[in-house]
Amino acid sequence: MNYPNKKPTNTKQKVASTKSRLGMNLEDDINATNAYYLSEDLAVIYKKPTPIKIVKVDYTRRSAAKIVEAYYNEPSTTDYNGIYKGKYIDFEAKECHSKTSFPFSSIHPHQIKHLERCLDHGGIAFIILRMASFDETYLIKAKDFLDFYKGKSRKSLSYVWIKQHGYLIESNYVKPCNYLQVVDKVFEM
Amino acid sequence: MNYPNKKPTNTKQKVASTKSRLGMNLEDDINATNAYYLSEDLAVIYKKPTPIKIVKVDYTRRSAAKIVEAYYNEPSTTDYNGIYKGKYIDFEAKECHSKTSFPFSSIHPHQIKHLERCLDHGGIAFIILRMASFDETYLIKAKDFLDFYKGKSRKSLSYVWIKQHGYLIESNYVKPCNYLQVVDKVFEM
Repeated sequence: MNYPNKKPTNTKQKVASTKSRLGMNLEDDINATNAYYLSEDLAVIYKKPTPIKIVKVDYTRRSAAKIVEAYYNEPSTTDYNGIYKGKYIDFEAKECHSKTSFPFSSIHPHQIKHLERCLDHGGIAFIILRMASFDETYLIKAKDFLDFYKGKSRKSLSYVWIKQHGYLIESNYVKPCNYLQVVDKVFEM
Repeated sequence: MNYPNKKPTNTKQKVASTKSRLGMNLEDDINATNAYYLSEDLAVIYKKPTPIKIVKVDYTRRSAAKIVEAYYNEPSTTDYNGIYKGKYIDFEAKECHSKTSFPFSSIHPHQIKHLERCLDHGGIAFIILRMASFDETYLIKAKDFLDFYKGKSRKSLSYVWIKQHGYLIESNYVKPCNYLQVVDKVFEM
């Protein structure tokens, strides 16, 4: 994409690396990347809305119903799914602020179960894990994650394990979390 | 499923036909059917949560954050997606209360665009349309719908067209909207 009227600054040029963007969180990065994939007709992948339990709605204003009492529900599935090259894609995205490990307690058991089901049914399933302290984002295959998780020898993924088993996701200005590049390679698509 | 302590009444036995369930709407029926498919490990298909724009949250109670101001957002995709026999599945469900036709104005243009994209990327895409007045539920292939929609000769699907091009979905107690039976036949899975 070209921005003919705007010359990129040096700061912005530096961004085009494996590092994450200035002040953007992982969800923003993935959403921006998905929007790019969609605009280029490469894939149709969306974040699911946050599940909310609505208790009370005020309909007095004609223009828009106003929800006045609602609560967050636990998600029963992962946050992202869609289709890429004719394949079902499903993943969960997590940001980790520890320098040593990613605790299993950070991911709901039913989300893990969901990834396993997607895998069993022939889908492409993975976790996108950002180690925020190192500004690194990894794709971890659901199969690798599940093998380790079910082994139950630990209660977390160590940073060493993540570096060994994860695949580093590159970033650039239009694709701040270019995970499909990794999907192509890792799942041989 | 057996309910040993509850004898089904005659009214309930009649329900096991192509007719819809007593007081259940289409969404309830599809959700119950998806739960059955999941429990039998046949497919992994979920309704996406309703998109909500959250404006204000009250965090004063420690137990649960309470959303005190929020509004409904327009959905950018369809309501349902998932995986079945290794294939990406995507559909929108609509209930129609007219006896003569289903107006295109009842389905958002971006939902139609989304179905088209899913189709183009190799997914299985369709609309589940319940003609509530006749207690009939049809699966309409996105391809058939799009061909007609793009022709722009009309602004609605007539009931005659729906009966000609749609596939009647059967219903029973555990699968109140057994659409995968139709998917198997229509998409040759």
